[in-house]
Order: sequence, then structure tokens, then C-alpha cells
Amino acid sequence: MNEDHFLDGFLNPKSVAFYGANNKGQSLASIQIMNLIKSNYDGNIYPIHPYLDLVMGYKVYRSIKDVPEIPDLVVIVLPAKIVPQIFRECGEKGIKRIILISGGFRELTDDRKNTLTEEIVEISKAYGIRFIGPNCLGVFNNWYEKKEEDKAFNISIWENLPKGYFSIASQSGTLSSHIWFDPENLDLGLGKSISVGNEANIDIVDCLEYYKDDPNTKFIGLYLEELKRGRKFLELAREITLKKPIIAIYVGGSKAGNRALESHTGSMAGDFRIFESVFKETGIIQTDQVQEFLDVALILSKGILPKGKRLGIITNSGGPGAIIANNAEKQGLEVPEFSKELQKKLKDILPPTASFKNPIDCTFDTNLPYFYITLPEMLMKSGEIDMIIQYGVVGFFDVMMDYLKVEQIGKYAEFDIPPEEEQDKLVSKLLKPTLENSKKYSVPILYVNPMNFNSPWSKRLRKNGAILFKLWDRPVNALAKVCTYVEFLKKRQFESKN
Amino acid sequence: MNEDHFLDGFLNPKSVAFYGANNKGQSLASIQIMNLIKSNYDGNIYPIHPYLDLVMGYKVYRSIKDVPEIPDLVVIVLPAKIVPQIFRECGEKGIKRIILISGGFRELTDDRKNTLTEEIVEISKAYGIRFIGPNCLGVFNNWYEKKEEDKAFNISIWENLPKGYFSIASQSGTLSSHIWFDPENLDLGLGKSISVGNEANIDIVDCLEYYKDDPNTKFIGLYLEELKRGRKFLELAREITLKKPIIAIYVGGSKAGNRALESHTGSMAGDFRIFESVFKETGIIQTDQVQEFLDVALILSKGILPKGKRLGIITNSGGPGAIIANNAEKQGLEVPEFSKELQKKLKDILPPTASFKNPIDCTFDTNLPYFYITLPEMLMKSGEIDMIIQYGVVGFFDVMMDYLKVEQIGKYAEFDIPPEEEQDKLVSKLLKPTLENSKKYSVPILYVNPMNFNSPWSKRLRKNGAILFKLWDRPVNALAKVCTYVEFLKKRQFESKN
Repeated sequence: MNEDHFLDGFLNPKSVAFYGANNKGQSLASIQIMNLIKSNYDGNIYPIHPYLDLVMGYKVYRSIKDVPEIPDLVVIVLPAKIVPQIFRECGEKGIKRIILISGGFRELTDDRKNTLTEEIVEISKAYGIRFIGPNCLGVFNNWYEKKEEDKAFNISIWENLPKGYFSIASQSGTLSSHIWFDPENLDLGLGKSISVGNEANIDIVDCLEYYKDDPNTKFIGLYLEELKRGRKFLELAREITLKKPIIAIYVGGSKAGNRALESHTGSMAGDFRIFESVFKETGIIQTDQVQEFLDVALILSKGILPKGKRLGIITNSGGPGAIIANNAEKQGLEVPEFSKELQKKLKDILPPTASFKNPIDCTFDTNLPYFYITLPEMLMKSGEIDMIIQYGVVGFFDVMMDYLKVEQIGKYAEFDIPPEEEQDKLVSKLLKPTLENSKKYSVPILYVNPMNFNSPWSKRLRKNGAILFKLWDRPVNALAKVCTYVEFLKKRQFESKN
Repeated sequence: MNEDHFLDGFLNPKSVAFYGANNKGQSLASIQIMNLIKSNYDGNIYPIHPYLDLVMGYKVYRSIKDVPEIPDLVVIVLPAKIVPQIFRECGEKGIKRIILISGGFRELTDDRKNTLTEEIVEISKAYGIRFIGPNCLGVFNNWYEKKEEDKAFNISIWENLPKGYFSIASQSGTLSSHIWFDPENLDLGLGKSISVGNEANIDIVDCLEYYKDDPNTKFIGLYLEELKRGRKFLELAREITLKKPIIAIYVGGSKAGNRALESHTGSMAGDFRIFESVFKETGIIQTDQVQEFLDVALILSKGILPKGKRLGIITNSGGPGAIIANNAEKQGLEVPEFSKELQKKLKDILPPTASFKNPIDCTFDTNLPYFYITLPEMLMKSGEIDMIIQYGVVGFFDVMMDYLKVEQIGKYAEFDIPPEEEQDKLVSKLLKPTLENSKKYSVPILYVNPMNFNSPWSKRLRKNGAILFKLWDRPVNALAKVCTYVEFLKKRQFESKN
């Protein structure tokens, strides 16, 4: 069903021709070919170039008409003024799909009409061509040839990203690709990403239509500057959010933001209030911050939604517990005081200096199974909370290892640090029952380790599937956003029953 | 003048006795001794222990009275109930300074009075002892023995931090020390840090008094749950903020936050509205988020304050530019459209697809001197903006190096990557004139590289003194906070003139 959608061909081409590539890294087309090589693409690649013989090892053709087959896709990175001619040549060849990277079309004119854009739109109609762009950064498909784990169709992202079910459609190339420059974002995983650019032919609504029935898309990220087909967008989004959450950054509503948009894609930002009501009506999770966009997506990627907005806090330090509680309530979450029964149970097993009302502050304690397994289980089973933030999953062994490097300490210290392998097993043992409970009770759990994201303990936690943050602000904010979606779903379900 | 303040002795002791240390890493007192060793402390260390002979290589004494001198400082990590007896013994010995780490005093009682606390307060009065705590995590002084770059008096922080002029006083131990677990925070540098705990004897106001005249403290960070001496705090803060900015996290105002506080330090959080008005009256920069606390401090650490709230944006990608502009305006900053003159000047040097109204979007371009030097200089000189965020200071060479590792690419690619040394020199050359201009025109500049903080290019930028962020949300939010302080200063200066 999904394979019938016309966009599927853009993400799964068996052959691609490139205009504008050479062997120098400064060219975007070259970078795109390098991305294909790096992601083990095994389709045919046909560089078109007036005088080079080889581009990155691929035989070069002087013109599209010399290419020995009709490529499934053509990518163009050439100055705007010669693009109409290239479109015509592609049309003659029988090309049906083009990704037009080049800028310099609509965004440079004041009257928002441009003969160049009109020209290529007309040519594409005449030849039955569909095209993405202009002024875009390409596409990414981590689900190209589903059997091969290490193959992707990727012309836009530098990092080889782990497979995921998060799919993006973006009116900014940076939001569709460059936010993946930092491997810290890798835990999220990515499914597909489409940079739509100026939307002269294919727009965000097309992408939503495609993602709606895509089995490898379970939640969707959007970056929006304007909507060309508002009504259609509203209808589609309303339908999709019942099954797949959508998270969106919308830019607009400020004078400076609107000016930036006009210069960027030449778009006039819509009325902010209209967008606000569209988001509310459709249950789209809205954020202004790209980090929050990624954080919300990371939580959604585990597929475990909270049932309500009651937060349980487990901490081994009072300050962070208090800040989490305070911010959670300010963000609209509830931090309920536990029932007398639960408080009694907790008091019985906690050290005498601990608190047990919510937040649970178990103070400085190195009994790991009790911290990682027992406490979260008690909260999840209690039914008194819908989600957990656990502060203080510190890499105690990492800290100790670091101290041992100092000669004097190494000589006298008597602490047992399990070897790497044992630590691997330990973390797996500590997390497994809790992550299973998290699924069973549908209670998301977010961990906070103030150490570096790539410290050994942090890496172990992440490898075992923990949602990990370095400080405690972001998990609160992101959970509050996720809860707006949960509340929306409840309301829709209530409406459909009544 | 500052050395006369009684707190100075707590931060510069020539000898320390420790109760509760052993050779096992699980004890806080052991960790404190290890921190002293790691930070090359060369004063005398006297562990007190009933049966061990050596702790981390130091000779152990059975009792404080056996110690061959009167230690400048005593640190206690023992169960609360035996602390009064220890205080008495210390008093008899002639000890004048104690840091009482142990919890289990006020925070465990419901009526907020505790005979244990009363008892130690009385004992300390009788013997003329001043003490920090109970329920705290110790102190940190990066300015111990000013001549030796690598010496600190540090009993609370794991990492060896670079020297800085930022000093902290905190009612949470985690806020005073554990936020430094991640070396990503190291760019900030730290001067001094005092974890005040329950404030049974020494409180936040004492710390402010001390920092006020401390030449190595140029800006101050506070974490507040309550104020014991509100009027004094107000007076002092009002005086200090005219010379040294203060940034504070205050927790309270929500039901859950207050409950957490009661459990944490046993304090009743003050009325949120009173705190709000204190912050407003004193010009203290207020935030709820610990990351923002660190971000604001990082900006302040450069000692360059904007003169107003007009933001200039330089970007090589439209999306981030638009988001920055939009959020900046929402946060109360201005993103003014440049004058016709400046626009013309910019248009003349920018590529034809660029925008030049603010944001400046110079699009994909690899002319580094023009991006790093020319554009910021034009903005700073123009007098039309007060601060700059520059998006897209990407490590282009890093990306290329990574591609070259792939065999096929390495074989055919023709790009010149300067050797490490040349890149070092290049970054220094690119940043130096801009950072000098930043100082000269008093226009802070914040850089954003979406790559990892520890990628080679990011490291080079940071090493050369750039304020670097990975994404573009945080710099906007932090600058908006800094501007609240700038506006306060203007108002106060206006008032004092009129």
C-alpha cells in the first residue's frame, strides 16, 4: 500500500544520476555521492559532468541522454538559471523523479513569483516529472532494502544512523539532516527524512500522506515555516495522530522570525494563531526548541506512552529532586504525594535519612539493585504514578577508576571494581527488569546521569535501552510535551465514545 | 580585606582532620581525601579512625586530641547521634572550623526543631567554633595558593576544574559539585564553591559577604531553597549586583517543590512571590533550569556584557536562523532589521543567494575568513546590534577526514585537509580578531556547531576561547537572561543619576 505512493520511488531508487558532482568535497553533489558510498548503496550511480572522466570512481557521462538506462532518480546541484534546460533534457530521457537541491529560485524574488520556478513547474508537468525542492538537502532512507541491516539510501546525512521508526519531513535542510551531526543524538535512531525545500511540486502534505501508511514510520517529526495546503494538512494530521504521534517545530509569529522566513524559503509565515489552533485540533506536539524536538522524539521512540500526567521522582540527591518536582508542576505535570500505604512500604526499605513522599530521596547509597530495580518497580506497580524520572544513575565505578589512576590512591585504596565484562552484565541485569516493567505497566522511565554521555557507565545504560539525560531539566520539559499528546488522545477517545 | 573574613579559613586550611574516612571508595570522607590528593593539596591530612593505621597513606589518629597540631579544619562524616560528642572533643582541642557533612539532623524531624541540631549549635557557641552544614558536601577552592596553577583545596569535586572567577554557594551539594561531573561544563571554569547544607551556623548570606570582596570572584551562582536572613540578603545582593552579577536557581512555589524541600533540608520554602520580588529588586538573574544556570555563567565568564538587547544573527542555514530569530523575540530580545546602509554593504560582499537583513544567511560557503572575521566585524562595528549568535561553525575538515576513511572515497577524493597543526593555527587566526572585536565593542558572540562538543574543530574553537553551543536554543535563552541583568544595571545607573 505504501509502496504505491509516488514518494516511495524517491527513497528507494535503484539508480541515480547526479548533476554537479566532482571529486572535491566542497560540492554538495559530491557529498551526496560520498554519503551513498558510506552507507553501502549498491544501486547504479551516474555522474553527469562536462569534462571529468571519473567522479568518486564512477564513470562520468557528458549528458543524461548518454546514460545507459533511465535512472530512477536525478539529483541536481547546479546554478538555478540552467536548471530548466536540465529539466527538459531529463524529461526527454524519460526521467520521472528529480531532487532539485539548488537554491536561487523563489527565495530571491520580492513578488514571490519567479519565472524560473514557473518554468520548471511547467516543464515537469509536461513530462510527468515529480520533483522535490528547489532549495533542499535531499532525502534519507534507513529502510532501503529491508533485509540488509547496513544499507541505506542516504544522500543527506553524514553519520551512519541506527535504524529507527522516526520519520522527518522538513522545510529546513538542517532540521532534516544536520541535527544528526552529533552522535549524542544517535540513541533516537532515524527511519526516513525528507527535506522538502521550497515545495514547488512536492510538499509536506505529500510526505504526511506517505508516512501515514508507512510501516516503518511510527512517529513523525515536522519542521514548518508555512503550509501550502492547510485544510488537507489538518485532515491528514487529525487522522494520523490517532495512531502515530507527530512532533513539530513551527517558526513564525514574531516579526524577526517572519523576516527570516521570507529570506529563507521566500515563504510568508502563516498567522501564528491559526497554526496554534491547527496543532491543538490535531494533537500535534509543538515545540520551539530543536533539542526538545529531539528529546520528545527519543521518549516516543521507545513506544511507551504514559497513561496520565503523574510523575514519580527517584533521586539520591535532594536538590535535583526538588528542582524536578518544582519544574514538573510548573510545566503542568502532577507530582502526587504517595498514599500512606506506599509511603509505609517505602519507609520500611529506605535508609533512615531518606525521604519517601515523592520525590523519593534515597540519599547517598550504593545498593544498586534496590536503586535500579526495587524502587522503580514499587512505583510502577503502585498505580500511583504514570512516569518516572530517576536522578543519580552515576557511574560509580568510572569515578573510582579515575581516582585509582592517581599513584597514591592506587597504592592504598581497597575498592573492588568489576572488570568491564562484569559491569556490562551488571547493567544489563539492573535495567532489564525495570525496562520490562516499564513496558508492562506503560510507565516511561527516564534516567539522569550527570556524567558525560559517553562515559563508560552512560554508554552501558544507553546500549541497554535506557533513555538517558545528563541533567534533569530536559526530561521534565519533554515529558510535559508528551503528556499534551496523551491528554489529546484521551479527549479524542472520550469524544468518539460519546 | 577578604582574608579577614572568617570563611577564608575554611577554603585555605593548612591542615585538615577527617572523621569517617577509610580506604574504601564508598565513604564520602574517603572521596574527600582522594579529591585532596588528586588536586595536589600539600597541607597536612589527619584521618581519625578507631582501628585503621593508614588511610590513603596518611597516618591515622585514634582521637583528635592525639593529632600533633590543632588542625585548621575538621571534616566530619559520621552518624548524626555521635556528632555532639565529636564537636565537644574538637572544642577541647581548640578547633575553630568544622565542615559537618553528615545528614540526619533537622531534615528528619517534623517539628523543625531537633535537640541534636540545638546541641551542636550550643557546643559550637561555647567553644567559638564556626561550622558549615550539617547535610552538605564540602567546599572547593581553585585559588588555594595562588602561585601554583595546579593546586586546589578541593574536598567536593571529582574533576580537576580549570581556574575561573565563578563562585558558588548552594543549599544543594549536587548543585555545588556534581554538576561538574561532565567535562563539557569545563569551559566555564570555577573559582570557589561552598555547599552550605542546613545552615545551622553558616548560611548563604555569609557566603555572599565573603564573595563580595573576594578578588577571585567576579560573578556568583546561588542555589536557594530558603533564606534565613532575608533582609540582610536583600541588602547585600543589591550592593553586589552593581559590580558582580549573581545568577540563582530558586526552588519553590509549587506544592511538590515545597514538599521536596521539606524532606531535603527540612526548610519551609518561602513565598515564591517574595523571592520573585527580591530577585527583581536586586537584579539577580533567575532561572529554573540548571543547564541555563551553567549557560548564563559561561557567558558571564568572558566578562563581556551586551549594552542592550539587540541580537544579530549570522548563519549558513535558513532554518536555524529563523528559529533563533523567532525564539529571541519571544524571549524579549530584539532582532532589528539592519539599516539600508548596512544591508547594502552586506549585499555587496555576500553570495547572490544570501540574505542580509538579519538574520544574515550566507548559505553554504567555505570561505572561512569572511564567515568568521568579516561578517562579525561588520556587525560589531555597525553599532546596530549588541550581541551575536553565529550558527554553522562546522568542522568541515572533520567531516572530510571522516569520509576519507572510506576506501573508495579515499582513493578518488581530491580535497586538501590541512594537517592538525595548520588547523590549530587557522582557528586561532579566525577567532582572534573577532574575540578582540567582541571585547573592544562589548558585543558578546556565541558560536553554534551542531557537531559533538569534543569533535576536533569544536575543541579548537573552545580552546581559543569561543563560547560554543551544539544547538541554537540554549544561547538564545541564556542571552535573554543576561539581558535582564543588563537592563537592571541601566535602570540602577539611571536612578543614581536622577
